[in-house]
Amino acid sequence: MTQITTEKLAELVNGRVAGDGATVIERIADLEHAGESEIAYVENERFLDVASASKAACLIVSERLSEKLPDRTLIEVVNPKLAFSVIGAALHPPIQREPSIHATAVVAETADIALTAYVGPNVWVGEYAHVGAYTRLEAGVVLGANVTVGDDCVLHPNVVLYDGVSIGSRVILHAAVCIGADGFGYVRHDLGYQKFPQVGTVIIEDDVEIGAHTCVDRAALGRTRIGRGTKLDNMVHVGHNCDIGERVVIAAQTGISGSVVIEDDAVIGGQVGFGDHTRVQKGAIIGSKAGILPGKIVRPGVWWGIPVQPLDQYKRMNAHMNRLPQMREDIKHLQEQIEELRKQLDRIT
Amino acid sequence: MTQITTEKLAELVNGRVAGDGATVIERIADLEHAGESEIAYVENERFLDVASASKAACLIVSERLSEKLPDRTLIEVVNPKLAFSVIGAALHPPIQREPSIHATAVVAETADIALTAYVGPNVWVGEYAHVGAYTRLEAGVVLGANVTVGDDCVLHPNVVLYDGVSIGSRVILHAAVCIGADGFGYVRHDLGYQKFPQVGTVIIEDDVEIGAHTCVDRAALGRTRIGRGTKLDNMVHVGHNCDIGERVVIAAQTGISGSVVIEDDAVIGGQVGFGDHTRVQKGAIIGSKAGILPGKIVRPGVWWGIPVQPLDQYKRMNAHMNRLPQMREDIKHLQEQIEELRKQLDRIT
Amino acid sequence: MTQITTEKLAELVNGRVAGDGATVIERIADLEHAGESEIAYVENERFLDVASASKAACLIVSERLSEKLPDRTLIEVVNPKLAFSVIGAALHPPIQREPSIHATAVVAETADIALTAYVGPNVWVGEYAHVGAYTRLEAGVVLGANVTVGDDCVLHPNVVLYDGVSIGSRVILHAAVCIGADGFGYVRHDLGYQKFPQVGTVIIEDDVEIGAHTCVDRAALGRTRIGRGTKLDNMVHVGHNCDIGERVVIAAQTGISGSVVIEDDAVIGGQVGFGDHTRVQKGAIIGSKAGILPGKIVRPGVWWGIPVQPLDQYKRMNAHMNRLPQMREDIKHLQEQIEELRKQLDRIT
Repeated sequence: MTQITTEKLAELVNGRVAGDGATVIERIADLEHAGESEIAYVENERFLDVASASKAACLIVSERLSEKLPDRTLIEVVNPKLAFSVIGAALHPPIQREPSIHATAVVAETADIALTAYVGPNVWVGEYAHVGAYTRLEAGVVLGANVTVGDDCVLHPNVVLYDGVSIGSRVILHAAVCIGADGFGYVRHDLGYQKFPQVGTVIIEDDVEIGAHTCVDRAALGRTRIGRGTKLDNMVHVGHNCDIGERVVIAAQTGISGSVVIEDDAVIGGQVGFGDHTRVQKGAIIGSKAGILPGKIVRPGVWWGIPVQPLDQYKRMNAHMNRLPQMREDIKHLQEQIEELRKQLDRIT
Repeated sequence: MTQITTEKLAELVNGRVAGDGATVIERIADLEHAGESEIAYVENERFLDVASASKAACLIVSERLSEKLPDRTLIEVVNPKLAFSVIGAALHPPIQREPSIHATAVVAETADIALTAYVGPNVWVGEYAHVGAYTRLEAGVVLGANVTVGDDCVLHPNVVLYDGVSIGSRVILHAAVCIGADGFGYVRHDLGYQKFPQVGTVIIEDDVEIGAHTCVDRAALGRTRIGRGTKLDNMVHVGHNCDIGERVVIAAQTGISGSVVIEDDAVIGGQVGFGDHTRVQKGAIIGSKAGILPGKIVRPGVWWGIPVQPLDQYKRMNAHMNRLPQMREDIKHLQEQIEELRKQLDRIT
Repeated sequence: MTQITTEKLAELVNGRVAGDGATVIERIADLEHAGESEIAYVENERFLDVASASKAACLIVSERLSEKLPDRTLIEVVNPKLAFSVIGAALHPPIQREPSIHATAVVAETADIALTAYVGPNVWVGEYAHVGAYTRLEAGVVLGANVTVGDDCVLHPNVVLYDGVSIGSRVILHAAVCIGADGFGYVRHDLGYQKFPQVGTVIIEDDVEIGAHTCVDRAALGRTRIGRGTKLDNMVHVGHNCDIGERVVIAAQTGISGSVVIEDDAVIGGQVGFGDHTRVQKGAIIGSKAGILPGKIVRPGVWWGIPVQPLDQYKRMNAHMNRLPQMREDIKHLQEQIEELRKQLDRIT
């Protein structure tokens, strides 16, 4: 168990202790459940009451809220949620494994494993593969031939990297992630389908985290890329030749067809579907379940719906649709009024 | 092969044999394909003709239909489909494995494996893990440290349980199910994303069955829960801190964001998407492909569409939309009539 | 590295060399990146400029375009993309493994492994399983009891075949594909759910390719079938008792409920959802994200939307919806006109 004083934790996040800097903290917790030796955070004013009642040994707060929590041990920071995350990482560091190659692991003679790496039980490392310093390959991981994995990576159980795939440093791949399977391409002929060659590769850059069971296909020709600092949730599908930029966030079960470009800092919801050759521009935000037609360019802004449209436009369209019953009433009423007018006219003439 | 007489099978389901109670049954089958030594069921009247023509050695029927199938060996019950399921389980019991730890399995010294358990080839069991009586861990299963698995469970090949996860008794996890991977949470800062801590756990209660490749993420803080008797289909995504109640049914490829609550006895279709912090109340039914906006409360009843709405309302809205072409015609017609009235008025004045 | 002259490559695809038939080709590439010893293809006229600028040692072109690329070494064919695919397969043959059973593989004594097969590390082959000639089982593959795998198959790492499943010849199963898990069927009773028996099997016919993480469930009774030459993308879900025909193409993350029939030569987009007991007729095309209600028959033609409708109809409906704001304006205008007419009438009477 890690034990750190509030003073040391405050230093870690450029914060200031109010109260007892010598309080020893062992764990993070939420406001409601936190108790002795635990630290929690107050996201904003709405949580002030819960915070007052909290039994946490220390609270992380914004300076503005600090005075509203007197007689408490606090760490004042600019962004409490961010500080809590950094402190959480310090208090709950990832498991350390002793550098070793498990007796049941099978490592090709030509593979190059860093002396500080961990290769777990039943792992298979192929010819000429490279595993970087302090990288952990958990049970059942499979690295194909000529795979490169950088330093400080964690590959959770049963991750599969096909031949030739390249992974940066500080990358986390959750259980059963599959990188580099063949893309989905065929050419129709008289008797059926001929497989289009899938002989490219995949490059995953530094600081990427990929959720369980996500699949990133290799390029037909060239490469599929996941840019630095990008985060993919569980069961995302990334097709061949996609180029996903840096610091992109993609929620669970989103499917990305071939040759899609997603530029830096885009945010994509869950269960979104991208037609092939679409381009999402820098900073665009796409709501969950949206559908993007092939070849579409999604400009910066917030997008929604199937097919995708600017959120404002979508809302206006929805409002129009909700007025449909009223419109029908209006039309009926107009018909009656006209009938009435006609009768009046008839009487006159 | 299991052999049971119709009399014994009838006892099993509180039924009554009409005809030969000594007929030996070996297998279940459907009405069309059933033959010698096989038993089938008649779901309702619509299947009477097929039932009459069936060559099944015995038919399971409701009492009401019994007299319409004279000269047959029948088992009369209240619910034929339910009785067929129970009889099927008796005739086709799950494979039994001799209690053993396969030579290629790797079990931590501190792990506690019941004497009646089966630990298959290439399984990895971590430190302080507990495996209950008669539980089967099939090939390639990975149990992290401090994992608890109850009695009479079946973990199919390549299931991965992350550290600290807890599984009840009589739980079935199909191939490659992943329980306890990190939830998807990050805090944005100037340079990119800081991972929000994911240090909670997952609790799977008794009698749960989870389909192949489904992922249930661990809580950020606290726990993610799947309640007793709940059934998840293939490739369902359950985000961090979700609380899924008892006897809930969720079809394939549905995605559930973080902190969603689904109360007991809800029924959820396939490819449904839940925004975070939504709550589904007891007994609500949600149709396939529905989308639920974050924070929404779904009350009892049948729900449909994106965003989700009561089915009646959805149908009315669809009916309105189908009348759009007619509405446009109506408007044109009104315009003509008004033009005509105006002309008449002009002639008068 | 494979080296083949342009003359030999032309023979392979029934093409004709224009230029130097002795040029040695080693790799395929795209027009932009191709260089020495590389061959690319010109899909149609739109690529003529890129083709002219290409540094590829040889270009595959249609006869019609041949004269527009003078002074180049060309292979003239009817279908350049198809020829490129065939040539790609010749230049980049799949990895060959020496026939062997890895020391860490566990093979049941009663299993029947062809002498030319490859059984990789940590593979598990169950009782009475059959593995055909030249078939490769990569690391971590699990074959249950009584499984049959034909000749020339590739099962990528961590594929799981449940007991009794049957796979044809020349089948490719990508990483973590799961064939034969229990279908999703339960019968509700007073206390919860009774599992409906799932005792059928799965048959995968010849020349099928299945993408990473796709799951095909076993039949409740009878069999689930994937027909000859059919191609499934990643993370497709195929429910129990489905019958998928020959040369069907299904894109990623599509979900198919139980007892769905998809006839030959259908083309299905990604993230499509099928209700149970639907039937897709021969040659129908269904757009991505479509939703098909249970029991629906989808006739030949192009289909779109939720619920699915003919594409033309969908487009008309969309056009109507886009006219909603105008319709509302029209109605307002009519109301004003009628008010005006009424006033005129009042003045007269």
